[in-house]
Amino acid sequence: MTIATTDPVQRAQRLDALRAEYESFRARGLALDMTRGKPCNEQLDLSLGLLDCTGRDFRAADGTDCRNYGVLEGLPEARALFAELFEVQPSEVIVGGNSSLALMHDVVVQALLKGTTGGPAWHGQRPKFLCPSPGYDRHFAICERFGIEMLPVAMGPDGPDMDEVERLVAADAQIKGMWCVPRYSNPGGVVYARDVVERLASMRTAAPDFRILWDNAYAVHHLVDAPPPLANLLAACAAAGSPDRAIAFTSTSKISFAGAGVGALAASAANIRHILAGMSIQTIGSDKLAQLRHVRFFKDAAGIAAHMRKHAAILKPKFDAVTTILAERLGGKDIATWSDPAGGYFVSLDTPDGCAAKVVGMADAAGVKLTKAGATYPLGKDPRDRNIRLAPSFPPLEQVRQAMELVTICVEIAALEQISG
Amino acid sequence: MTIATTDPVQRAQRLDALRAEYESFRARGLALDMTRGKPCNEQLDLSLGLLDCTGRDFRAADGTDCRNYGVLEGLPEARALFAELFEVQPSEVIVGGNSSLALMHDVVVQALLKGTTGGPAWHGQRPKFLCPSPGYDRHFAICERFGIEMLPVAMGPDGPDMDEVERLVAADAQIKGMWCVPRYSNPGGVVYARDVVERLASMRTAAPDFRILWDNAYAVHHLVDAPPPLANLLAACAAAGSPDRAIAFTSTSKISFAGAGVGALAASAANIRHILAGMSIQTIGSDKLAQLRHVRFFKDAAGIAAHMRKHAAILKPKFDAVTTILAERLGGKDIATWSDPAGGYFVSLDTPDGCAAKVVGMADAAGVKLTKAGATYPLGKDPRDRNIRLAPSFPPLEQVRQAMELVTICVEIAALEQISG
Repeated sequence: MTIATTDPVQRAQRLDALRAEYESFRARGLALDMTRGKPCNEQLDLSLGLLDCTGRDFRAADGTDCRNYGVLEGLPEARALFAELFEVQPSEVIVGGNSSLALMHDVVVQALLKGTTGGPAWHGQRPKFLCPSPGYDRHFAICERFGIEMLPVAMGPDGPDMDEVERLVAADAQIKGMWCVPRYSNPGGVVYARDVVERLASMRTAAPDFRILWDNAYAVHHLVDAPPPLANLLAACAAAGSPDRAIAFTSTSKISFAGAGVGALAASAANIRHILAGMSIQTIGSDKLAQLRHVRFFKDAAGIAAHMRKHAAILKPKFDAVTTILAERLGGKDIATWSDPAGGYFVSLDTPDGCAAKVVGMADAAGVKLTKAGATYPLGKDPRDRNIRLAPSFPPLEQVRQAMELVTICVEIAALEQISG
Repeated sequence: MTIATTDPVQRAQRLDALRAEYESFRARGLALDMTRGKPCNEQLDLSLGLLDCTGRDFRAADGTDCRNYGVLEGLPEARALFAELFEVQPSEVIVGGNSSLALMHDVVVQALLKGTTGGPAWHGQRPKFLCPSPGYDRHFAICERFGIEMLPVAMGPDGPDMDEVERLVAADAQIKGMWCVPRYSNPGGVVYARDVVERLASMRTAAPDFRILWDNAYAVHHLVDAPPPLANLLAACAAAGSPDRAIAFTSTSKISFAGAGVGALAASAANIRHILAGMSIQTIGSDKLAQLRHVRFFKDAAGIAAHMRKHAAILKPKFDAVTTILAERLGGKDIATWSDPAGGYFVSLDTPDGCAAKVVGMADAAGVKLTKAGATYPLGKDPRDRNIRLAPSFPPLEQVRQAMELVTICVEIAALEQISG
């Protein structure tokens, strides 16, 4: 029975019941947090061995003393490990510090001030970025800070609306970049289809210095046994004659330790040279001991894959709780849709238009913090005010259940109040 | 007997003898490196305990799980430790990643793109920096990369020529910044006198957003038992009514591990807020486990001071070898002057004008790499071609001796060849 088919009396009765449920939740004085994609303690415990796996052996395989200065591009064995993840050659990898966000931020900053291999400084050219939305708020925040105009592009089940993307980049040389989270998009859990990847690589761009920032944050973060494949954008760009178009990023933040992992990027030889030229002015090198620990602990991509299955065992029940409670409480009512991701860190929930901010506010008032409504859109403004990002990784399973019960109550109340005028 | 008092025949004989010495050096096929201020293995071994001092205890004093995201400004106990070194309050400290150079670079980059607490973006204003010279090549490289015009200012025994500094900053609103290494300047080993610090704090600047980048890289890196005092620039700026003028930097790169230390900055509350606003877009936080290790290992400033005495015990004989061999082989000949630093990482050698590049080239040809001549000046151009930076920390003592024997031979040959026309 959908809301639309109920009569006003039924709706009023249902609202009374839901409000009572809501009040009883509020009375419990919960303090739950589903705002950010943080690993939980049990996940972090999986990597405790990182803390002491090197002992006092501080030498890289080639004899490099990892305690001392140097090796700007990263340890050879760390580049090799990330090359496996990126499906590129080690020479096409730079291993950095603990933050892949910083690598992305700095690539944008350097392009603003110094340009890319494909053209002069973006600064002063009024640069614009395509922003598949809903998307990752920290990507959008980089654009916002530096005055890069954001053009939202709708996300579909296979990735961004490529007809729109192709139309925009062909027409406007100010469009210098595009943010993508290609497998398990944040928040939708979308996996970019092969066709989308190939169109991104081969599309004609008015800007010769157009750059795709390919944030493969959840490259190996599967929740299912047979993860959906992701085509290799860097290879597709090389094949399409646009080898410098894409720069890929990833990190071990949600593999090992969120705050003490290792970030890396992959790109064409020309991009690597260009990026290292900027980095050589910024730093003498990243923390090689952190890189060494990761290589010693994980060994190779197979080691990481095995490790990620342990993460999945912890995370899957939480994601299942989210989608199960959504289905039980909102299914068939025609008031919400949500993702059922095969990996990543989020469930994306769409309420009726105009209800997301209200739901987030109601949940907060009853002790459940959700990601701010609108956060998944450029400038924090969801034009339909409907998208809510649910991040179930950090709270214990029982708290995820409690939070989702409340969220569904809030969604139904908001929907009923809206239809009742 | 100085060169000027010798007659041509004596000089020719001396040159023959020196050339024979030089050839015998070259025949030995040495491969020594005195280019960079890198700690040696024995120094790094002093901090081996850092590698395992935390065991698997990853919690900060306030319970923070250092493995997870967050705490952008740094762990409270790490801020407290650096606050002791900076002589400020913990709230005035940001503890970052492994590179204080990156903190400086990023402060400049943010000022270029977004301005400071004192004014709009530097970019487009044709900013200039004062560069006390000889100075640190990596500071100058930041300016060079971003098109910041560098105005060299002469260094004297008490710091930069303050009459010149005051004259310049009062007259030119494009002068937005100044690089300083205030105690044990790189390369001269100069300690800024109290009067210099107070004049820097109180001088009138045409630019309201003038910033002193106070790179206190060698804050605790003493070679003597009673180190020369350094006045607190941040306190002096606060007292002079220019609290936001200075940003101080330091790191443990030459305390613990050069490539895996912890960098930090100190500044006014307004500057800290401003810098954190930029950092919050760049990263979710620095590696807190690295910070925790450092606090556990060193405990406090007294612990660091005790540790630095062990460094001095390793370094002092190398510095003594440099200055002793310089005195033995060049003393009284009126062809060179050099520093005898009470701390830091360098000895600064001045040859006769026009001889530095030749000396560095000759040394290189005989197997001793020195810092490139000119590197200690903006754009790599020493106007008098006389300054050579000697970095004796990394090679073993016997190699320092060999290298310095050769360097003195090269200096005397260059001087004699020059006087002989």
